[in-house]
Amino acid sequence: MHIGLVGLGKMGNNMRERLRAHDIEVTGFDRNPAVSDVSSVEELVKALPTPRIVWIMVPAGEVTTAVVTELAGLLEAGDLIIDGGNSRFTEDFKHSALVADKGIEYVDAGVSGGVWGLANGYGLMVGGHKKNIDLAMPIFDALRPDGPREEGFVHAGEIGAGHYAKMVHNGIEYALMQAYAEGYELLDKRDDIIKDVTGTFKAWQRGTVVRSWLLELLVRALEQDPEFKDIEGYVEDSGEGRWTIEEALANAVPVPTISASIFARFVSRQPEGSPAMKAVAALRNQFGGHSVKAVD
Amino acid sequence: MHIGLVGLGKMGNNMRERLRAHDIEVTGFDRNPAVSDVSSVEELVKALPTPRIVWIMVPAGEVTTAVVTELAGLLEAGDLIIDGGNSRFTEDFKHSALVADKGIEYVDAGVSGGVWGLANGYGLMVGGHKKNIDLAMPIFDALRPDGPREEGFVHAGEIGAGHYAKMVHNGIEYALMQAYAEGYELLDKRDDIIKDVTGTFKAWQRGTVVRSWLLELLVRALEQDPEFKDIEGYVEDSGEGRWTIEEALANAVPVPTISASIFARFVSRQPEGSPAMKAVAALRNQFGGHSVKAVD
Amino acid sequence: MHIGLVGLGKMGNNMRERLRAHDIEVTGFDRNPAVSDVSSVEELVKALPTPRIVWIMVPAGEVTTAVVTELAGLLEAGDLIIDGGNSRFTEDFKHSALVADKGIEYVDAGVSGGVWGLANGYGLMVGGHKKNIDLAMPIFDALRPDGPREEGFVHAGEIGAGHYAKMVHNGIEYALMQAYAEGYELLDKRDDIIKDVTGTFKAWQRGTVVRSWLLELLVRALEQDPEFKDIEGYVEDSGEGRWTIEEALANAVPVPTISASIFARFVSRQPEGSPAMKAVAALRNQFGGHSVKAVD
Amino acid sequence: MHIGLVGLGKMGNNMRERLRAHDIEVTGFDRNPAVSDVSSVEELVKALPTPRIVWIMVPAGEVTTAVVTELAGLLEAGDLIIDGGNSRFTEDFKHSALVADKGIEYVDAGVSGGVWGLANGYGLMVGGHKKNIDLAMPIFDALRPDGPREEGFVHAGEIGAGHYAKMVHNGIEYALMQAYAEGYELLDKRDDIIKDVTGTFKAWQRGTVVRSWLLELLVRALEQDPEFKDIEGYVEDSGEGRWTIEEALANAVPVPTISASIFARFVSRQPEGSPAMKAVAALRNQFGGHSVKAVD
Repeated sequence: MHIGLVGLGKMGNNMRERLRAHDIEVTGFDRNPAVSDVSSVEELVKALPTPRIVWIMVPAGEVTTAVVTELAGLLEAGDLIIDGGNSRFTEDFKHSALVADKGIEYVDAGVSGGVWGLANGYGLMVGGHKKNIDLAMPIFDALRPDGPREEGFVHAGEIGAGHYAKMVHNGIEYALMQAYAEGYELLDKRDDIIKDVTGTFKAWQRGTVVRSWLLELLVRALEQDPEFKDIEGYVEDSGEGRWTIEEALANAVPVPTISASIFARFVSRQPEGSPAMKAVAALRNQFGGHSVKAVD
Repeated sequence: MHIGLVGLGKMGNNMRERLRAHDIEVTGFDRNPAVSDVSSVEELVKALPTPRIVWIMVPAGEVTTAVVTELAGLLEAGDLIIDGGNSRFTEDFKHSALVADKGIEYVDAGVSGGVWGLANGYGLMVGGHKKNIDLAMPIFDALRPDGPREEGFVHAGEIGAGHYAKMVHNGIEYALMQAYAEGYELLDKRDDIIKDVTGTFKAWQRGTVVRSWLLELLVRALEQDPEFKDIEGYVEDSGEGRWTIEEALANAVPVPTISASIFARFVSRQPEGSPAMKAVAALRNQFGGHSVKAVD
Repeated sequence: MHIGLVGLGKMGNNMRERLRAHDIEVTGFDRNPAVSDVSSVEELVKALPTPRIVWIMVPAGEVTTAVVTELAGLLEAGDLIIDGGNSRFTEDFKHSALVADKGIEYVDAGVSGGVWGLANGYGLMVGGHKKNIDLAMPIFDALRPDGPREEGFVHAGEIGAGHYAKMVHNGIEYALMQAYAEGYELLDKRDDIIKDVTGTFKAWQRGTVVRSWLLELLVRALEQDPEFKDIEGYVEDSGEGRWTIEEALANAVPVPTISASIFARFVSRQPEGSPAMKAVAALRNQFGGHSVKAVD
Repeated sequence: MHIGLVGLGKMGNNMRERLRAHDIEVTGFDRNPAVSDVSSVEELVKALPTPRIVWIMVPAGEVTTAVVTELAGLLEAGDLIIDGGNSRFTEDFKHSALVADKGIEYVDAGVSGGVWGLANGYGLMVGGHKKNIDLAMPIFDALRPDGPREEGFVHAGEIGAGHYAKMVHNGIEYALMQAYAEGYELLDKRDDIIKDVTGTFKAWQRGTVVRSWLLELLVRALEQDPEFKDIEGYVEDSGEGRWTIEEALANAVPVPTISASIFARFVSRQPEGSPAMKAVAALRNQFGGHSVKAVD
């Protein structure tokens, strides 16, 4: 099998390597010529056998739409676009409609695994028509982890279902991380009782109810930098968490831990203090004469 | 009527003034001789007619216990202690038991109103036996706001009920403040849309569903310092909020907004960043290679 | 002054009455002929002096868009549409653009006060160009509560600002209600301590920090039905709360109490139990052998 | 090695079996003679070589205190009590003090693993003096999972540290479960998009960021009962979650996801509806004339 791969950043580059290691021929394109196999998307398309399969691995939003649009002008009926980026599922409806006129097929793929995917394989959630999933199965089998297919791959539904599943996956991920982090802060705070915080997390890796891959990563991080002396508590978020909450709102599903996780990140990014808490401090001062901390 | 008042801080001092303005004779004692009417609690007790009534207005916890203990040695059967401080309701059980042997009566009084109480009167929630409430009613009538008694005073139950009601009052208060503060931050953030944040809050003072005294105070604070330029978003908490959550936990009552309000205050007091968010940042770095903000 | 009013439901009908009581002539239209002054929007437009002012008071969303669209075909340059419904602020951008070609002016008005507005007046937050606000000021003055204009009315910004302010107002409102409700549940649960729940809330109406209009309504409700024996704990939400959270997400503003309030409502509407909690019960059963409550 | 084991319920019974399978001789006592090796604690103590080691595995609280008290009267200086139950860490201070006079040693052990511990081993967190930990190490090695000792066992600190670590472990566990459960509800709700909810969770088991043991259990539960038709969404809590929040409050540590998890369980146990939400419904009715659902 021989496919095209547009986008060779941190994720795309690793995926090319894993695909090739699993005997999938890959022609990759990236704006950065240093990593690119070809000099243009057009050239990439020309290099592929029909039906062509092009995997897109670029930032969600406008960049993905631009690539889909460009491919719409280059591909032919029966060719297949797979969006493996972190697109919102609603984008899949738009993108698939954009290429449907020409008979170009479309599959969306949620990909999890981060930088570890190269070695461990990627968890895959895909959406689209069965015939297209079948067509691309060798790619999915190359990318997914070893072991039973159904433990690292799912055909979750029609177009959009892959990114929908990935969105929820990431919403859950946010809350899982926050849960461990709250426990960490509490253990760390009571250093009069807990003499070995890293060792405590490490001991949870086998036998306990909370064992997980994230726990292993937390142990790894603590072993590298106990007490996180070199890390600021400033945390970005990449969209899927917010989308999960928006979906929850639209469907009247309560998501208190997922939203708490996102809000904690928002607060972490207010280095000059929270406007809301200034208001609370001002209020306390008004009714109780409680002193406020004046800005120096 | 002539009563004793132990504790002449910000609250006690104002209360003495309001009581006197309502023709209650007050002998006040404070460790600070500059504000004290007598030089000792013993002297205070001697100055009072029987049955003596002594109102305690000192910091909750050990200080209150010490005053109750001292009074237990000075008062006689039929005398009445009223704890008007912010004691936890469980302290009332302890304090009343401590004086019960000698036949000294006990009432607990939750007092709300802050620095405005001198002029506006204090909202009162009291607990204790009816005969003691009746005995002290002239005091309550002097302290409470003008208007119908039942709109500024309640005999909520037996000993402990006054402080219990005050505890819940304060738990609610925390959440109310946080609610306005969240709205403030959102209005403030979208200054491309909302051109007059202070004016918007001001306009909510009449006719709207959210009108309240706290809203009026927020308007007052904003008029003094729009955008809170001179205030740090650092907010203390004084115990009742935490106790409310502990009570909620003990009784399986969900209190998501009250707990969110307390946690927001905790975060506001982490000027060097949240340990939990350092853990989340470290985790993201581990799995995704997401860059972390290094401490300089 | 003589204006048109489209939509004579619970709110519109009351507003017509209040406007007329304040010497504003009103021609009202509603699909329900029993309350309508004219038989069509066209007839309503014809009845008005120029520049015509038409206040829309119909359900947000498609219904409002349909009325704006119909009016766009009937009004002329210089006429003014005021949307007083609960539209999302983004709709204002769309609706004003829809009528801008013809030179029809547009103002959005957030209106708070519910069924009490007829007697007390409505809190008003408006957005739009100053000349249009000035033109409509007699209407705003008639609708708003007595007292200083700025305590019941604000020109919050350009088009959209009125509904934006109203959206945030309602988000706050949700959290305020939830705060009192959590306190209520705790007081109610400890009926061994608090012997007079209604009396406790009633006593908070004067002097306390938590006094508010919502508190007065809660007292009123408790006096009508102590312990809420005739009420199900099933609570709808009308959109603004969700929009507030979506705006908060879009602007990275943490809103933990507002979101907790919405989620509490979502849960309240799951009479057959929460799917999430079934999952938690199933998990506990899996790892701990904890028995689950089987559905009968 | 030969030890005593008091308490042969679901956990204790399995632990006896695992210990024996690892060549630790065990004399077990339980009130239930059907599972007991001896007829009394006294007989158990007599059966043990010195220094005697007695592992307690009974319900936390009064039952554990009663067993410790009984053992205090039977054991001698140098003997060792290990409390492996789910005691609050503060109980360890009390229990160890209770036996210290007689020179009886004390270790607390947090044990995780549930019904799976028999086969997989138990995650262990212990607190106490090093000499006692060393003495009991063969027991810990028998109980903990295979693999490196430090991945299933930690000597977390002095007396109390083991249960402290277990308490935080369980707090985290609550939030992890809630996180998956929220994701489940969202996937389940959008069955128009996600055609295979079980398959989606199953596919997360390898390669993804959210893979964990709890995820595997959720898949197991879903395969047994997709959509949880036979399970009520009624979830108990066993103490550690509440204690975690109390500790967080006492130490000003924000724990929004852990508290959200507990509150979700509280709500799940209100089959007749939430009093708080009745209050919200009543409030909406008061100001907006929103209809309430009347109890039939």
